[in-house]
Amino acid sequence: MATIGFIGVGNMGGPMAANLVKAGHAVRVFDVMEANVARAVAGGAAKAASVADACKGAAVIVTMLPAGPEVRGVYGGAGGVIASAAPGTLLIDASTIDVDSARAVAADAAAAGLLMIDAPVSGGVGGASGGTLTFMVGGPDEGFARAKPILEAMGKTIVHAGPSGNGQAAKICNNMILGISMIAVSEGFNLAARLGLDAQKLFDIASKSSGQCWSMTTYCPVPGPVPTSPANRDYQAGFTAAMMAKDLRLAQQAAQAAGAVTPLGAAAAQLYALMGAAGRGAVDFSGIIRLLDGK
Amino acid sequence: MATIGFIGVGNMGGPMAANLVKAGHAVRVFDVMEANVARAVAGGAAKAASVADACKGAAVIVTMLPAGPEVRGVYGGAGGVIASAAPGTLLIDASTIDVDSARAVAADAAAAGLLMIDAPVSGGVGGASGGTLTFMVGGPDEGFARAKPILEAMGKTIVHAGPSGNGQAAKICNNMILGISMIAVSEGFNLAARLGLDAQKLFDIASKSSGQCWSMTTYCPVPGPVPTSPANRDYQAGFTAAMMAKDLRLAQQAAQAAGAVTPLGAAAAQLYALMGAAGRGAVDFSGIIRLLDGK
Amino acid sequence: MATIGFIGVGNMGGPMAANLVKAGHAVRVFDVMEANVARAVAGGAAKAASVADACKGAAVIVTMLPAGPEVRGVYGGAGGVIASAAPGTLLIDASTIDVDSARAVAADAAAAGLLMIDAPVSGGVGGASGGTLTFMVGGPDEGFARAKPILEAMGKTIVHAGPSGNGQAAKICNNMILGISMIAVSEGFNLAARLGLDAQKLFDIASKSSGQCWSMTTYCPVPGPVPTSPANRDYQAGFTAAMMAKDLRLAQQAAQAAGAVTPLGAAAAQLYALMGAAGRGAVDFSGIIRLLDGK
Amino acid sequence: MATIGFIGVGNMGGPMAANLVKAGHAVRVFDVMEANVARAVAGGAAKAASVADACKGAAVIVTMLPAGPEVRGVYGGAGGVIASAAPGTLLIDASTIDVDSARAVAADAAAAGLLMIDAPVSGGVGGASGGTLTFMVGGPDEGFARAKPILEAMGKTIVHAGPSGNGQAAKICNNMILGISMIAVSEGFNLAARLGLDAQKLFDIASKSSGQCWSMTTYCPVPGPVPTSPANRDYQAGFTAAMMAKDLRLAQQAAQAAGAVTPLGAAAAQLYALMGAAGRGAVDFSGIIRLLDGK
Repeated sequence: MATIGFIGVGNMGGPMAANLVKAGHAVRVFDVMEANVARAVAGGAAKAASVADACKGAAVIVTMLPAGPEVRGVYGGAGGVIASAAPGTLLIDASTIDVDSARAVAADAAAAGLLMIDAPVSGGVGGASGGTLTFMVGGPDEGFARAKPILEAMGKTIVHAGPSGNGQAAKICNNMILGISMIAVSEGFNLAARLGLDAQKLFDIASKSSGQCWSMTTYCPVPGPVPTSPANRDYQAGFTAAMMAKDLRLAQQAAQAAGAVTPLGAAAAQLYALMGAAGRGAVDFSGIIRLLDGK
Repeated sequence: MATIGFIGVGNMGGPMAANLVKAGHAVRVFDVMEANVARAVAGGAAKAASVADACKGAAVIVTMLPAGPEVRGVYGGAGGVIASAAPGTLLIDASTIDVDSARAVAADAAAAGLLMIDAPVSGGVGGASGGTLTFMVGGPDEGFARAKPILEAMGKTIVHAGPSGNGQAAKICNNMILGISMIAVSEGFNLAARLGLDAQKLFDIASKSSGQCWSMTTYCPVPGPVPTSPANRDYQAGFTAAMMAKDLRLAQQAAQAAGAVTPLGAAAAQLYALMGAAGRGAVDFSGIIRLLDGK
Repeated sequence: MATIGFIGVGNMGGPMAANLVKAGHAVRVFDVMEANVARAVAGGAAKAASVADACKGAAVIVTMLPAGPEVRGVYGGAGGVIASAAPGTLLIDASTIDVDSARAVAADAAAAGLLMIDAPVSGGVGGASGGTLTFMVGGPDEGFARAKPILEAMGKTIVHAGPSGNGQAAKICNNMILGISMIAVSEGFNLAARLGLDAQKLFDIASKSSGQCWSMTTYCPVPGPVPTSPANRDYQAGFTAAMMAKDLRLAQQAAQAAGAVTPLGAAAAQLYALMGAAGRGAVDFSGIIRLLDGK
Repeated sequence: MATIGFIGVGNMGGPMAANLVKAGHAVRVFDVMEANVARAVAGGAAKAASVADACKGAAVIVTMLPAGPEVRGVYGGAGGVIASAAPGTLLIDASTIDVDSARAVAADAAAAGLLMIDAPVSGGVGGASGGTLTFMVGGPDEGFARAKPILEAMGKTIVHAGPSGNGQAAKICNNMILGISMIAVSEGFNLAARLGLDAQKLFDIASKSSGQCWSMTTYCPVPGPVPTSPANRDYQAGFTAAMMAKDLRLAQQAAQAAGAVTPLGAAAAQLYALMGAAGRGAVDFSGIIRLLDGK
């Protein structure tokens, strides 16, 4: 079992750190919010006084932070992870951030003789608590190999997507497709309703035909066809519209930087931004159908 | 076995009529193009001299025509199907047309004491030849019940989507979702390539995750992951971009008439129209990825 | 002075008919709503009992109706304008309708020996009352020449846009540009506000630069720069979002029928449809900025 | 007259520096491309060996660079402008860059006791040569006051848009409106052509109506109505599609960072990116009409 520094123990990072404790690791946590630290300590972790303190004596550092600027801030500068970690430490950033930041920080870490991987997750708070997250990993083979047993204490599916930044790339490509296809399915059911075509009928036909997609068959945006989908509990999240808006924005940033043409990705980002403007950011992202049908 | 009048025996209607002949029906065909008639006659059908002649003595009339105006023209007026068919005849329109036309013609037929269903298909020329089409049927229960054995000679899956026009509604709702999700998947793979994420890697991850959709797992727009997809044969159709453009246009017409908001459906219709403007209408619809990546 | 039958005397047609009365014409009105007729009669018009009755003895028929189906209905069939008007009667349809309907009805009129023009207007209820409408006219030269003095009693600018249907074409092309550019200006001011750039500053710069457009310099969607614009009276219409949605829908119908690629026209139509879905259809169309900024 | 260091003397910076020389200033130039320096020297400037050398003895530094990273690079670090300029030096960045970079560099300059303004231009190579550029200036009043006489040697219109970064903000807001309205006008003329409405007729009507905008009345995307517009010389730039794509990308970056909803701005950015993907980046931006009509 390893000594692990864990930085960022909020809604997602908190239960993830708790799962590392349960697996027998010695976990020392830091967070800018005292309440988050207290909760983690109550779950068996030790308290660190600062980022640098969390790095002290750790064989592995895990970070779970809101966005690229926070990751750059926590890793860089005096007192940051890169300056504080002992040579040979494994750095795992589980945050969902922009590809450029992920690659820049990993390059800085490598230059300092540290092994770093980006490992954003899918699965939400439920997956974090249950230890069933999916990790999409970018970084060198050695980093992936060393990280795998650690990640398995927090998740069920661990995939290696290639060199640094590719974990982030895989996540935003997947989630861009998800965001667009959720709107597509919502538009389909919205049009069907206006044409007098029953939602269950459309589901029965399209779910076995060329319109099939996860957004329909696992997370259907109308109540009924998929009993476990948020539509059946008044669009209580789940995965909020604000979180989808963030991922679509990251995808657009990457697309602009890389010169990729993504017209529907851009349009989907705008529609989820409109949900935010309409005060619906905390609703599940499948609630986009209510923006379209005006209900 | 029945006496069947079949009007419109082109690329789709021709093999469909041939399958009815094989099933033992007496089929009398009419088409405005003499060559189509000749080919059907070579396959065992009898020749009719006109629409009215094709209706004479028929218990069932099947039509397979390009668009709404042709359907209105063939069914309406003196010498049209409705004026020519004997009371009690079953009318099956397998054309893909606008919902309003489908409902208007069905109402005219009902007023004349005839039983009519709309039964657009999916499956393409391959499905028509192999007798494996999917029929999405709109119309009264009695019409569906009587049509089912006839349709089973031409297709494998026969679903009843509700009253008149609902076959058309089901098809355009499904195909609108399909058109959007194909662009979504293409954008995802395009972005991945620009970010240095291998197509097979993205496929391995997204096909088992929330980005999964038929457009990816059965008809993948990049060569490799799905060996049978048109991407592996230089985007030879399959289902052409022009046909997708037509279905998306029908969806937009229905959405405008019904007051349904469909922003990505509208954008997808424009992107397939742009493919046409770029001279790529005859390419498979998964070739939209080449419009995006400029290859 | 002429004897004029006027069919459709609602919000727009009412004041238009009143202006014809003021100019000295003998005007006989018909409307399906009794209250509209009563108001016109109070203004000096005579009452007609039906469409056919309004046509009796008229040298000119003017119609002002909601949409294409109403125009087809009032002009066609027994008791319709075409069947009822004496040979040589001039028919003026001032409704804003789809190009195809305008051309179809004009062709039917011509076949019956009647001279018909389409003459949609811009200028709203204010222009109708003040007699300052703009008429965009489609139809033969002779029709334009004969109509001009009649139209001058109701409007200030009378332009001949070419053969039948071109009045409608000119109006929807202009209004499609208007709808898009209003959203463009709204997005510009929305972005400026978020970046800390004062609205008046942006106005001062862009109104004299390449971003200049009527939507900014005459009808500015933020309060302040243009004191007469609806933004200064809480977006009271003016020209409602619902009316813009209708015109954009007509433009999309024409574009689909004609095979014109109009991506921003399609997107603008969806955004105004979203305003309707959000319950803001009665707001001035410049109020789209409130959908974007969430205020 | 002042001693001015000028960094970046390419297509735009070259003629701008030449105009400073003509106005009697002593100009010392630096550029990473030797040929650019040579051309400037031939026009009367002196050669500087490095960024730091260009700053030596200068009362004013002007920079004209491609994008934010270059500006950050040239201003920051040892040997950069901020480290090299004497206290009290006026720094003028005329590059078009992202708002965040502009504000970050200006803050660094202020911290070092230097006065900095952002002053992006419009007017293109023609305006740079003729000394008729428009400068949109962000920065403190004192900076604007001191810069004005310098800028007047290179441009005709000098406007103060507010504090640091507001020059960039004004430019991208204006150009986002411009990019959208150019597509709007192109769609309008494209639709008109398909409906049989003459381009000159549409121009005559819309240029005096609510569809009026600079993109139509000064820079019309179809040949004919405005003889000086690039459409009359086969869309030779002018202002290239690639430059418009860059400005729209900057607008999207700012919108994402600031949380502004800009659906048509996003769509316009994608359409100009598609022009690039289609190999048309060097064409004038009004050539977007050829992407739409497939000619």
